[in-house]
Amino acid sequence: MKHTLSVLLQNKPGVLSRVTGLFSGRGFNIKSLCVAETLDPSLSCLTLVTNGNDAIVEQITKQLHKLIDVIKVTDISEGEFVEREMALIRVKAENTTRAEVLRVIDIFRGKVVDVSSKSYSVEVTGSANKIQAIIDILRPIGIKEIVRTGTIAMARMPKK
Amino acid sequence: MKHTLSVLLQNKPGVLSRVTGLFSGRGFNIKSLCVAETLDPSLSCLTLVTNGNDAIVEQITKQLHKLIDVIKVTDISEGEFVEREMALIRVKAENTTRAEVLRVIDIFRGKVVDVSSKSYSVEVTGSANKIQAIIDILRPIGIKEIVRTGTIAMARMPKK
Repeated sequence: MKHTLSVLLQNKPGVLSRVTGLFSGRGFNIKSLCVAETLDPSLSCLTLVTNGNDAIVEQITKQLHKLIDVIKVTDISEGEFVEREMALIRVKAENTTRAEVLRVIDIFRGKVVDVSSKSYSVEVTGSANKIQAIIDILRPIGIKEIVRTGTIAMARMPKK
Repeated sequence: MKHTLSVLLQNKPGVLSRVTGLFSGRGFNIKSLCVAETLDPSLSCLTLVTNGNDAIVEQITKQLHKLIDVIKVTDISEGEFVEREMALIRVKAENTTRAEVLRVIDIFRGKVVDVSSKSYSVEVTGSANKIQAIIDILRPIGIKEIVRTGTIAMARMPKK
């Protein structure tokens, strides 16, 4: 099952390496990982997506809690949550394909962030599924390069 | 100086931990890091931002090259590049502040992705500076939670 973990940790050298080490020590692959500063520059927030057996993910969560520089671990996928990802995609855009590329970008509410005579670079955001959908559509036209952030997630708030 | 490294690596357990270990072994902090799949699911692309002495970054780049699962390392910040980051921000939005919050979101071309009676969750993308600007403006209104992806980057293409 896919798990999205949100981990609040001290922004210090070595912490990230200990966190990722916990996963690799179990031969457990990390599907995507993002880590960046929070409002408090001494703390970082790490979002990690892994496909794994529930029991092992629970075990890793417990071991994450034990790391001294880890402040909080939440398995966001246990409740309702918003997940988003961003990708930069450089796609072939020559005379004959440019109009079609722009139509696709428009449908997915992407933004062109760089243009050359042979390609467009596009920024697109959405769920992992949406990113996959635009990739699948642009691929036959010719994707030259792609960089994805990986997923970040936030728990949904009760509506009342 | 700020360096943005783009690293293409095998999508296997343990690779990420070896890469981050190279940095922590030198007491070198990673400002942000994103790693996710590429078009080829056997490969991942990692984008890493670090503030460090040029000589040490060069040394780390060389050692990254030596790791068997690392395919390509590029210091993107050596040339022209596009950099983007995404943040999810949950901001207090009560009767008196809602209109102002929406105005700010609109100016920064953000998208409201979740609403509760007391808060809006907003998706915003841009350079690290732009993300910092919206944070600085929303902070006095009341930011309840923030998750950032960290920077991803792509080299700009020659215009002709």
